[in-house]
Amino acid sequence: MAIPVVLFGCGTVGRALAREALSLGDEIRFLAVLDSSGGVVDPSGIPAGRLREILSFKEKGEGLGATGLTWEEALEAVCALLREGRGVVVDATASEGTVGFLLEALEQGWGVVLANKRPLVGPWEDYRRLTASGRLRYEATVGAGLPVIAVLRSLLATGDAVYRIRGILSGTLGFLLHRVEEGIPFSQAVREAMARGYTEPHPAEDLSGKDVARKALILARTLGLPLELREVAVEPLCPPDPGEMPIEEFLKTLRLMDAGMRRRVELAGKKGKVLRYLAEVSPEGTRVGLMQVEWESPLARARGPENVVVLETRRFREWPLVISGPGGPRAPPPGFSPISSN
Amino acid sequence: MAIPVVLFGCGTVGRALAREALSLGDEIRFLAVLDSSGGVVDPSGIPAGRLREILSFKEKGEGLGATGLTWEEALEAVCALLREGRGVVVDATASEGTVGFLLEALEQGWGVVLANKRPLVGPWEDYRRLTASGRLRYEATVGAGLPVIAVLRSLLATGDAVYRIRGILSGTLGFLLHRVEEGIPFSQAVREAMARGYTEPHPAEDLSGKDVARKALILARTLGLPLELREVAVEPLCPPDPGEMPIEEFLKTLRLMDAGMRRRVELAGKKGKVLRYLAEVSPEGTRVGLMQVEWESPLARARGPENVVVLETRRFREWPLVISGPGGPRAPPPGFSPISSN
Repeated sequence: MAIPVVLFGCGTVGRALAREALSLGDEIRFLAVLDSSGGVVDPSGIPAGRLREILSFKEKGEGLGATGLTWEEALEAVCALLREGRGVVVDATASEGTVGFLLEALEQGWGVVLANKRPLVGPWEDYRRLTASGRLRYEATVGAGLPVIAVLRSLLATGDAVYRIRGILSGTLGFLLHRVEEGIPFSQAVREAMARGYTEPHPAEDLSGKDVARKALILARTLGLPLELREVAVEPLCPPDPGEMPIEEFLKTLRLMDAGMRRRVELAGKKGKVLRYLAEVSPEGTRVGLMQVEWESPLARARGPENVVVLETRRFREWPLVISGPGGPRAPPPGFSPISSN
Repeated sequence: MAIPVVLFGCGTVGRALAREALSLGDEIRFLAVLDSSGGVVDPSGIPAGRLREILSFKEKGEGLGATGLTWEEALEAVCALLREGRGVVVDATASEGTVGFLLEALEQGWGVVLANKRPLVGPWEDYRRLTASGRLRYEATVGAGLPVIAVLRSLLATGDAVYRIRGILSGTLGFLLHRVEEGIPFSQAVREAMARGYTEPHPAEDLSGKDVARKALILARTLGLPLELREVAVEPLCPPDPGEMPIEEFLKTLRLMDAGMRRRVELAGKKGKVLRYLAEVSPEGTRVGLMQVEWESPLARARGPENVVVLETRRFREWPLVISGPGGPRAPPPGFSPISSN
């Protein structure tokens, strides 16, 4: 009964999945684990002990090519697996280059699960082909694992119509704005977020708004809108094209934004509103940036690294449907025993 | 491709379903519509015109026995349908007497969809048998149609473990408490809720907390807890056993509660908390009643007739998973065009 899985990517997300699978016992059987250097393939399932070895190997910063097959060998072995059986391919990479392989897997009858947003934000035609089979799942790409895509798809499948989606989809940017509201200069809040591990290694990755734009595009496309990424209007929270600017220099340029950010937060406050970095999909288009929201809005409630998604639909309009929760994975809490478990 | 449906109950919920189905075109085909007086049965599908006739007939307060078959005839015809084909039975009654029929339908391979809570809150063994087939859906019984059961089941199915569920599951009681917070005497708030159509015809039905207790039990049972309704601790918001007390007399007795309710709201306020009528499923048991919640809690945010469900699980603990939305169906808004529809 174990689900055969081929895992691409063995970074934070891939390893978390492998650990979750190990904790579930034998519900998931990994046939292959690959990173960009190579991989380990075992058509009868990588034994739990070997999988744990792989995880600690990766945690030391090693590439899988050093303990298993080279990239070419691993890919060839995986292609053989695709032809011979059925299972699920998980893309936990951050690569743009997996689309072709994922389409091949779907064609062979495999399921595909994405944590990787990139395959979904390329040309619309790729998106269409990926989703056409009905065997693609991508809940993890938007809303940090909150059930956003599932709820959206269920509403659409049962005849509801969506008027607008607004969301706080970056826990990092939510944290930053919350700190600025508390009186901390913006550039200092960025340093704080870095210290807490809330940002990508280079914070420009978060501040550019590009990752939120990808999520907004995925929401829009889920509604059936044939948009391209360039059509999503993005307001970055950093100077344009930080490019390869060294981090320290980048952080210094952010100081130029401190006064402006403070002013915008205060201006919103004077109108009884709060400033939030939102993704919005509406009849006016899809956009990402700083927006003022009413104090009473569910979007105003987010403090720190929360994600909040507000769906306004034919069924949920006067009081929209709101889904909220953490902006990223959290460690299991100590000292609590579950009242249910499966 | 139309889904064949047998509809039991043609009150507010049943009629709303029929209207929704009519608006979807031919996705749903009603083979039978029954109320407690009789019904209309057409194995080839009740034509849209006839269905509209039935709805306006019901809206005049008439029983279906007067326009169609008697109850016995209708039931016999429906039992023949069960044997001959496949489809979905919808229980939109408020009856305790449908369990036997629903089990029969499941046994014959039909799906069953419940808006009616009663079949799920009888003996645990009934619940177990109803859910055993995997062909029972009951999203509409808890959380006013918010995706609570679906999300809960998906978390459990993917290996999460639940620590605690807390929810505001009565829009009516939420509205009352909100009005008391605003300074309105409790008994007067009840009259106001009645005037707005937020309560059942006799408000004791809402104030007794019994309906919330049923919802709490359904949540607990969904977690696999083999509880009975009598094991759910319930704090009513009215004198015990209002029984057949006439409404005006009942409303007068509520005045005796005004001072106490005011005091409890104020006491909570002094501690920086707010008073909410909650359903709670936790390792300490399942209970329903007035509880103090922190001002920052998602449960404190509910204003008026909202439903809010907070799931604390292994995956969602420090920041719980929150689902919120309206406490009941709302009319479609004017002047908005959807950006998607199916």
